[in-house]
Amino acid sequence: MTLFIRHTSASLTIQENADPTVLDDLMTALDRLAPENAGWRHDTEGPDDMPAHIKTMLTGSSLHIPVLNAELTLGTWQAIYLIEHRTRPHRREIVLQFLGSTG
Amino acid sequence: MTLFIRHTSASLTIQENADPTVLDDLMTALDRLAPENAGWRHDTEGPDDMPAHIKTMLTGSSLHIPVLNAELTLGTWQAIYLIEHRTRPHRREIVLQFLGSTG
Amino acid sequence: MTLFIRHTSASLTIQENADPTVLDDLMTALDRLAPENAGWRHDTEGPDDMPAHIKTMLTGSSLHIPVLNAELTLGTWQAIYLIEHRTRPHRREIVLQFLGSTG
Repeated sequence: MTLFIRHTSASLTIQENADPTVLDDLMTALDRLAPENAGWRHDTEGPDDMPAHIKTMLTGSSLHIPVLNAELTLGTWQAIYLIEHRTRPHRREIVLQFLGSTG
Repeated sequence: MTLFIRHTSASLTIQENADPTVLDDLMTALDRLAPENAGWRHDTEGPDDMPAHIKTMLTGSSLHIPVLNAELTLGTWQAIYLIEHRTRPHRREIVLQFLGSTG
Repeated sequence: MTLFIRHTSASLTIQENADPTVLDDLMTALDRLAPENAGWRHDTEGPDDMPAHIKTMLTGSSLHIPVLNAELTLGTWQAIYLIEHRTRPHRREIVLQFLGSTG
């Protein structure tokens, strides 16, 4: 199954589904890799805009997870996350595509 | 549809298709994440070679974009980019694969 | 063909298959992007745990490589790598999925 996000400032990732501090740390890591106020030229939409594009590029717009016996083959600790990289909430659209046989 | 780039120093990404300063800033961000002359061991092909491999690893070799009614489901602001990470132009090959039914 | 790794602290990437110093440098680059002892909140499993999650997020959990005439369309210098991001070896599971026609 493919998940595809139709935006350039929000992204999809697979990460740990248990300890919420992992998610906090992942956001901290992305903030360090793509900080605000780092001399970006593109800033008309605010200081969070360009970092959001960079974070999307680094994490990706699509996921592909094989399906076996009608279930995603996610590992025990894997969960699917949509990461909103803008400061204010946005409405986001994801396309889900199933390819293969249902037999 | 899948796009796959057959190289290790150029990559594919989906990013904003409007303001060209976004692309400039994305390249700046990659330069900061994978700088030249940062003590890389692999430098026989020049200082831009190892950063190009790192940038390729961080951005990715393939894209998967669902097709609906014979059109890519790209969002309003999404465009497909091939990023050349070497300083000098190279000839690059991309494989396009369409999977599914045309009915 | 899709490869999917069922873990959140190991990942898949396509990179150069020749000079082993490229792989060394890629690991160095990831260590610099996701250093240990950088104030991560999630550290119950040791200092290498949170960096492993970050590196997995940055490099990715799946690869998709088109097949043509029963062969992967990998370029001359491309090889598939499973990157173990934890310090101690772990047993890892990958799901391989082939979609398409064999005719």
